[in-house]
Amino acid sequence: MSRYLSERFASLEPYTPGEQPRDMAYVKLNTNESPFPPPPEATRAAARAAERLNLYSDPRLTCLRKELSRVYGVQEENVLCFNGSDEALLLCFMAFCDGQHPAAFADITYGLYPVLAKVTGAPFEVIPLKDDLTLNVNDYVGIGKTVFIANPNAPTGIALAPEEIRRIAQSNPQNAVVVDEAYVDFGAESCLGLLDQCENLVIVRTFSKSRSMAGARLGFVIAGEELIRDLDALRYSVNPYNVNSMTLAAGEATVKNEAWMHSCVQTICLNRAWTEKELKALGFEMTPSKANFLFVRHPRIGGKELYLKLKARGVLVRHFDRDRIRDFNRVTVGSLDDMKALVRETKAILEEIK
Amino acid sequence: MSRYLSERFASLEPYTPGEQPRDMAYVKLNTNESPFPPPPEATRAAARAAERLNLYSDPRLTCLRKELSRVYGVQEENVLCFNGSDEALLLCFMAFCDGQHPAAFADITYGLYPVLAKVTGAPFEVIPLKDDLTLNVNDYVGIGKTVFIANPNAPTGIALAPEEIRRIAQSNPQNAVVVDEAYVDFGAESCLGLLDQCENLVIVRTFSKSRSMAGARLGFVIAGEELIRDLDALRYSVNPYNVNSMTLAAGEATVKNEAWMHSCVQTICLNRAWTEKELKALGFEMTPSKANFLFVRHPRIGGKELYLKLKARGVLVRHFDRDRIRDFNRVTVGSLDDMKALVRETKAILEEIK
Repeated sequence: MSRYLSERFASLEPYTPGEQPRDMAYVKLNTNESPFPPPPEATRAAARAAERLNLYSDPRLTCLRKELSRVYGVQEENVLCFNGSDEALLLCFMAFCDGQHPAAFADITYGLYPVLAKVTGAPFEVIPLKDDLTLNVNDYVGIGKTVFIANPNAPTGIALAPEEIRRIAQSNPQNAVVVDEAYVDFGAESCLGLLDQCENLVIVRTFSKSRSMAGARLGFVIAGEELIRDLDALRYSVNPYNVNSMTLAAGEATVKNEAWMHSCVQTICLNRAWTEKELKALGFEMTPSKANFLFVRHPRIGGKELYLKLKARGVLVRHFDRDRIRDFNRVTVGSLDDMKALVRETKAILEEIK
Repeated sequence: MSRYLSERFASLEPYTPGEQPRDMAYVKLNTNESPFPPPPEATRAAARAAERLNLYSDPRLTCLRKELSRVYGVQEENVLCFNGSDEALLLCFMAFCDGQHPAAFADITYGLYPVLAKVTGAPFEVIPLKDDLTLNVNDYVGIGKTVFIANPNAPTGIALAPEEIRRIAQSNPQNAVVVDEAYVDFGAESCLGLLDQCENLVIVRTFSKSRSMAGARLGFVIAGEELIRDLDALRYSVNPYNVNSMTLAAGEATVKNEAWMHSCVQTICLNRAWTEKELKALGFEMTPSKANFLFVRHPRIGGKELYLKLKARGVLVRHFDRDRIRDFNRVTVGSLDDMKALVRETKAILEEIK
């Protein structure tokens, strides 16, 4: 750090995104992207918006909020859009955490949470998952903290039932409870239905996974009107034109074609089932995933070793070099061809080390 | 605010962007947008990028940083890109301001500065401009604070010479000095040449004005390698994929065609000179603007009254309802047709109130 940087960041460890090596063409299964593009009308809408880039994007995000509110059966005042769900999460940490409202989240979950807590100065408690990497709901009941839960969780893919989230939300009435539903479309049950009963619930969503728009950077929050107003006040205070006009246009077009998304999701779920079966047949153990990735380990090869060997063979998966999950790799579920390549190379590696 | 919002934001007043009314088609001279699109190859590059939105954008921003470093004659390690220069400014407030490094900026300048100071919890001093709305450099010499200066300033358009910025930077060696050059291409002199002498200098730029890309949201910072590393650590901590892939592609194509930008800037400067002359002939007073806007007042009509009357006639300008500048309006310099409409309607209003 330079001597100009505020000392409060002296020990900040930034988030590390999945690697994007350019030395060769990889089967890229390391950042949970969709193997499918968004619907063609989204691409066309973005291209049209690119023709008038000289004008600012709509700071009120009107059209996209309207479309999202329609498809999720809420009011426009219940929806707000962000430059990726990462920006939404940042603003949740800023808005709803402080000395009186410390954050709480699992030890094994989306790695950005502790980074956001540190960068915003929020005190936080890290709560270990159980040995089987499931979350003990009772750890969060009445905890009196601002809870962040990825549901399904990453990198495990394990989902909680809305009923369990309801217990957490209703037992922490002084705190916001933020449910990060980035992967919910791949088979978990959303907490949207709880919004009426739980006024402290904040649901964070992204266009990066099921909606195939990772490169466009688009996330959104659905919550009660008052909480949305809080987040909007912060949004206007940190970056009033936070979403660019091409992304807004593509997002709107994508939401208008939910059938496209459902079809992509269905294929990915089928590919997930296929990959699960194949990897289990090779002796892999895995958590029960409701997401577009599998979290797998093999009794005969370490996580890092498998990751490196796969990379050498042109298949990228994500290895987290940290306690408790060092044996695992997170494998994005891509196209069937991608998954076949994964299985083929994995098989070859296991043969090698026999 | 809801009862979940942190109390430190209880008195937060968000930034108010220029209005975007949709009740009729306006001659829009209120948000300093360019009347010209970016070069056609930028639009094409964005459209191509829109075809692979399922993949994340490059978190390292490699290609655009490379292109910017080439055109500005610096190293890639001296450049960093952001989701609009607003995000760059936010990260500067986070990185370089704290209890030991309070911020300092003018009373009349870009309205986001005090909002960013408040939202990041940075203590700050507001230093009044002189009566003629020029900045007294001596107010900042040896002040021992993290200085934010818009150069040229907004909404006055008045520019400082790099030599004056140098005095400020060199006399505050413990603090970063952030020079916001959003409007510099329209006739002021950049401080880029000072980077070698002033290691605490942070130059913030935007694609929204001279590069006609307000809707794409793209800003960048040029500074010493160490300060860039600080800002990059924060960027990876708040939003690792902060710039979307369409904007990255359009930005790169735009920087490759500097002739296009220079031609747009030249036209706007000619239109500015024409408008200055016409408005002065109508009795307007104005600050000497080096930006793509004029800051004007008329002895016979109040600022708000003129703004409202122009709006009723379909011409939008920006009025700031605050002390010291209430008599003024900020008028974006658009196409010659736009400026003719402005002059025509203004003339009619002045006739009316004779």
